[in-house]
Amino acid sequence: MIKAGIVGGTGYTGVELLRLLAMHPAVKLAVITSRGEKGVEVGELFPNLRGRVELAFVEPDDKVLKGCDVVFFATPNGTAMNSAPALLAAGVRVIDLAADFRLRRTEDWEHWYGMPHACPDLLAEAVYGLPEVNRESIRNARLIANPGCYPTAVQLGFLPLLEAGVIDPQSLIADAKSGVSGAGRKAEVGILLGEAGDNFRAYNVPAHRHWPEIRQGLLAVTGGPVDLVFVPHLTPMIRGIHATLYATLTDPDADVQALFERRYAAEPFVDVLPPQSHPETRSVRGANQCRLAVHRPRNGKTVVVLSVIDNLVKGAAGQAVQNMNLMFGLPETTGLEGIALLP
Amino acid sequence: MIKAGIVGGTGYTGVELLRLLAMHPAVKLAVITSRGEKGVEVGELFPNLRGRVELAFVEPDDKVLKGCDVVFFATPNGTAMNSAPALLAAGVRVIDLAADFRLRRTEDWEHWYGMPHACPDLLAEAVYGLPEVNRESIRNARLIANPGCYPTAVQLGFLPLLEAGVIDPQSLIADAKSGVSGAGRKAEVGILLGEAGDNFRAYNVPAHRHWPEIRQGLLAVTGGPVDLVFVPHLTPMIRGIHATLYATLTDPDADVQALFERRYAAEPFVDVLPPQSHPETRSVRGANQCRLAVHRPRNGKTVVVLSVIDNLVKGAAGQAVQNMNLMFGLPETTGLEGIALLP
Amino acid sequence: MIKAGIVGGTGYTGVELLRLLAMHPAVKLAVITSRGEKGVEVGELFPNLRGRVELAFVEPDDKVLKGCDVVFFATPNGTAMNSAPALLAAGVRVIDLAADFRLRRTEDWEHWYGMPHACPDLLAEAVYGLPEVNRESIRNARLIANPGCYPTAVQLGFLPLLEAGVIDPQSLIADAKSGVSGAGRKAEVGILLGEAGDNFRAYNVPAHRHWPEIRQGLLAVTGGPVDLVFVPHLTPMIRGIHATLYATLTDPDADVQALFERRYAAEPFVDVLPPQSHPETRSVRGANQCRLAVHRPRNGKTVVVLSVIDNLVKGAAGQAVQNMNLMFGLPETTGLEGIALLP
Amino acid sequence: MIKAGIVGGTGYTGVELLRLLAMHPAVKLAVITSRGEKGVEVGELFPNLRGRVELAFVEPDDKVLKGCDVVFFATPNGTAMNSAPALLAAGVRVIDLAADFRLRRTEDWEHWYGMPHACPDLLAEAVYGLPEVNRESIRNARLIANPGCYPTAVQLGFLPLLEAGVIDPQSLIADAKSGVSGAGRKAEVGILLGEAGDNFRAYNVPAHRHWPEIRQGLLAVTGGPVDLVFVPHLTPMIRGIHATLYATLTDPDADVQALFERRYAAEPFVDVLPPQSHPETRSVRGANQCRLAVHRPRNGKTVVVLSVIDNLVKGAAGQAVQNMNLMFGLPETTGLEGIALLP
Repeated sequence: MIKAGIVGGTGYTGVELLRLLAMHPAVKLAVITSRGEKGVEVGELFPNLRGRVELAFVEPDDKVLKGCDVVFFATPNGTAMNSAPALLAAGVRVIDLAADFRLRRTEDWEHWYGMPHACPDLLAEAVYGLPEVNRESIRNARLIANPGCYPTAVQLGFLPLLEAGVIDPQSLIADAKSGVSGAGRKAEVGILLGEAGDNFRAYNVPAHRHWPEIRQGLLAVTGGPVDLVFVPHLTPMIRGIHATLYATLTDPDADVQALFERRYAAEPFVDVLPPQSHPETRSVRGANQCRLAVHRPRNGKTVVVLSVIDNLVKGAAGQAVQNMNLMFGLPETTGLEGIALLP
Repeated sequence: MIKAGIVGGTGYTGVELLRLLAMHPAVKLAVITSRGEKGVEVGELFPNLRGRVELAFVEPDDKVLKGCDVVFFATPNGTAMNSAPALLAAGVRVIDLAADFRLRRTEDWEHWYGMPHACPDLLAEAVYGLPEVNRESIRNARLIANPGCYPTAVQLGFLPLLEAGVIDPQSLIADAKSGVSGAGRKAEVGILLGEAGDNFRAYNVPAHRHWPEIRQGLLAVTGGPVDLVFVPHLTPMIRGIHATLYATLTDPDADVQALFERRYAAEPFVDVLPPQSHPETRSVRGANQCRLAVHRPRNGKTVVVLSVIDNLVKGAAGQAVQNMNLMFGLPETTGLEGIALLP
Repeated sequence: MIKAGIVGGTGYTGVELLRLLAMHPAVKLAVITSRGEKGVEVGELFPNLRGRVELAFVEPDDKVLKGCDVVFFATPNGTAMNSAPALLAAGVRVIDLAADFRLRRTEDWEHWYGMPHACPDLLAEAVYGLPEVNRESIRNARLIANPGCYPTAVQLGFLPLLEAGVIDPQSLIADAKSGVSGAGRKAEVGILLGEAGDNFRAYNVPAHRHWPEIRQGLLAVTGGPVDLVFVPHLTPMIRGIHATLYATLTDPDADVQALFERRYAAEPFVDVLPPQSHPETRSVRGANQCRLAVHRPRNGKTVVVLSVIDNLVKGAAGQAVQNMNLMFGLPETTGLEGIALLP
Repeated sequence: MIKAGIVGGTGYTGVELLRLLAMHPAVKLAVITSRGEKGVEVGELFPNLRGRVELAFVEPDDKVLKGCDVVFFATPNGTAMNSAPALLAAGVRVIDLAADFRLRRTEDWEHWYGMPHACPDLLAEAVYGLPEVNRESIRNARLIANPGCYPTAVQLGFLPLLEAGVIDPQSLIADAKSGVSGAGRKAEVGILLGEAGDNFRAYNVPAHRHWPEIRQGLLAVTGGPVDLVFVPHLTPMIRGIHATLYATLTDPDADVQALFERRYAAEPFVDVLPPQSHPETRSVRGANQCRLAVHRPRNGKTVVVLSVIDNLVKGAAGQAVQNMNLMFGLPETTGLEGIALLP
């Protein structure tokens, strides 16, 4: 059994990670820490876990965490980077669900996250945990930067086209819509049911921290310049991201449907729908799955990709477990075969 | 492996049954029938099942169904009663998720469902599939009447009090609230998002078919007269029932909390919360679970019970699988250990 | 023109009051105060008011407020009682939308609101602003305690039965369901869309501050003992209260439908539906209206009343404007004739 | 008083038109027809109108309709074109809220709507009722083609840029999101709360009937080729459209904010937000308003316009009333000054 610890875990990625690990056949949940909820039973904070997770939140204790095989950080940005070095030194694998290790270049990270980075060397070592791109590196990684939710949906949608070189990388638009759980379990007025319910709006159009993360991933494919416009929106639902992607075709004869099907034929968690399809976010609710459809309206110059994930699963906790499975030599799908809840 | 067939299955109890059976370790889904969707892949109608259920809907075919070990009916009322006799004669166990076998007395059934009953003898034989009450009979049953969603939530809430004789059985009020999936996957204006969204209303206050079903179950406990007022409401959510129950205490010294805890101590799927609690429907979303809390406001004469279930799971498909497990000698929780999805 | 000021007004009752007063033909909005939002344009905080309310929030300034004809307090509990005496002394009428003046007896108020009352004499003078009960007193009042949302819905539902003496006042149950705007525009985790969306739960079953307020109103009718059980629930919608009321009939021959129709025949804002009806909260969304239906299931001993209001309108800001109209001799419906928004 | 008739009116544009006309100071509602709901009181079908609209639905009767000053068609496509000629001949003004007169060219109409057009000559005469473009023609029109909801939001967003010639008309992308009321009040499974709730999806990506309508409007501005990709999505809310528009700037020095502010400075129903803003659909809920914001992320080559309307008001019934006001020489804002309902 893999002995797993969670640091943080009082937010939505935390409760989803707990749900997945509690049902994982090869994992023993050893410890979950939270300063704020110290002493509170997990099942009291998250009533779905009553009777299923018998732990209480405890103060972070290095000794206990160092006794784990793997530690997940489900903490705010800027936390994991302070604890990761000691854990890694103790031989613990670390998977950070926040953004501390997502951007390769220290100056980029410090620019977008507004603080000095505590361990730039680890930033360089960390593996970006998108298995569909970095599977082999993940297997051997000590430290995983688990991708953001938007970046997962957007990269999986653009990759087949960029890898095949059939679109202009300077023509990329990602119009993305997220359920409110993507904003976290935080006491903020803007995500109250009274504010975000029965309402639709864009946000952070001038700048969003997932922009450099997406761009970095796309640059790694193209090797050359990438021009990406990224517009996130808040939609009145709880879970789910729908990314609608636009790009200009450079090869008008490209069979984009075939490209997608070939690219993801062997991927257990990416499902390419038949032509003319429209994936629904609910088709992946609670499941570690990305569903994609590709269109070329009126056979024109623009290709449209529709990409859906559950932001808390393939966009966070599920992908973290997928990475853990790879790191520990388990079948990649272990503990991730739950079927989406519909309706 | 248990060879299972499903008749009907294009509605919400159908898709939930498919989800549960597809993940059940001891079941092989052999056939699913639907006249209307004949030839359609299950994964096309229900995109959450793409890649997980490789069947297509077929026309009902007695020969195939008779080759099953168990057949579930997820059909409209009045369907199962026409096919059940032949299947039972062929040695197949039958679990009806509709109402055909729920009322003991033929005249009651015909009164409430407005048609003659096709097999009154089976009505008498059928076992009402509420395991918390009829576990032993279920183990030996050929034919199960799977309880309605409201009746499950309401009966589990009243039972400990009635069995202990501490409330007046002529003082019962069940104020119940259901998500819209309880109304089925039917093209009806009243359950459109544009009608039922951001809206709350009662319905069927003069009469609802679950009233005689609940009353019959309570009468079996009391043996004497039962006076029950049942008011169902539609609440703008998808899954979940919250029943708020009221009764007049006849024993002012009764320790109602202890009564509930004792009654359900050994039940795997009934969870009694600590005093002062308020169960949430989301704490059972997707899970075969009933969570209960009991209150006595201002230490007065009225006891208040709060009971939540997922109407599609403990209120329908999950309970059907629980019954199947019992009928086939499997551990009762097999395939039913999924944790509720929160948020 | 009536010169109106608003103290507070950054919450949901505030924005609704602003909406109604901005469209009121006899009112000039003179000032709106908020320490927290000082300097912010109203239209910036509440984008529906852009171009319609040209004020900015200012710090409370007694001189300006004393120049008003009427001042509304849309503040947290415990605020109005500190400012009301000086305003009243200056000849300003005061309408408090919070709870400072709702309970007659000082000791009750201090018990339920957990603080000493700043002006017990005014507590005694204040008129409870439920026009359907206190219309004449309201006309002459200097100080109005605007009723709570639940108390409005519940009292209007019980009154005809209690006034006619056809129910047992010791048998009252109010099972009430509210949209989340009733909890205010506050940064609290429990009312996030991610928490309260697609979820249903009861809360405060042991004790809720609206219980003594409702009971006080009912006692005023019966003159004798009242036994009321009040169970509030949170339902995943934004606006609306649905109260389902239960009582034991003492007069089995009472024509309850006629009772309701007679009681409210002349009321502009109370609508009694035909027999067998089920009012919907959306039928009053944004409107100063209470819609009622009365049932007697199976002609039994229990009468069931269904009562719906918009908690922010008839349950708060609309009722406040109705009270203002009465106090200033305007037709009671002035500025309150907006039709509910459906769908 | 303008004597107004409504044909159809049992759908969502119908109920919204009834709400607006019932509050309009210069209109007398004379008749509302519906074959299906013949004899039903308006207030019975639409409970928000109880006590406010005292009509019942009647069978269409030419004589009554010909006695009106204006007749609104809130009917399915293909209905108005059969009745309009006779009404116009009788001197009645006609406003069609469906699509019968929206496309200029008969062959386009017949291609997209799949039936022969009953009166191609009127198709040529009809004025496209977008007052911000065709105000003067509307004043003198006998027959108005009231624009579609998406076309209103999209055209108002693109117009300032196209008119100023600062974007490439062959680079246009409209990513549009609609609440479900846009799909009408029809018994269809896909828009059930159980299907469309807590879910997000695109639809009709290959082709949508609003595409030629939008394109026609944009062509009228540019005079030259227009390349438009239009992707509509269904979002789990009731009212509201959010269009996110993308175009390539051809003039990198264009002050796009100033362009928008100038273009709409005199428009009563178009509100340009300050730079860096994100309009919310709820800010126009129930109001005849379009709110716009314009962005240029990272000062790049792509301009992003955010455009919100209430699909039933500025996208349908409100715009129809605005057109009526113009046709009858009333102030354009008469009866349209209701403030949006927030929250």
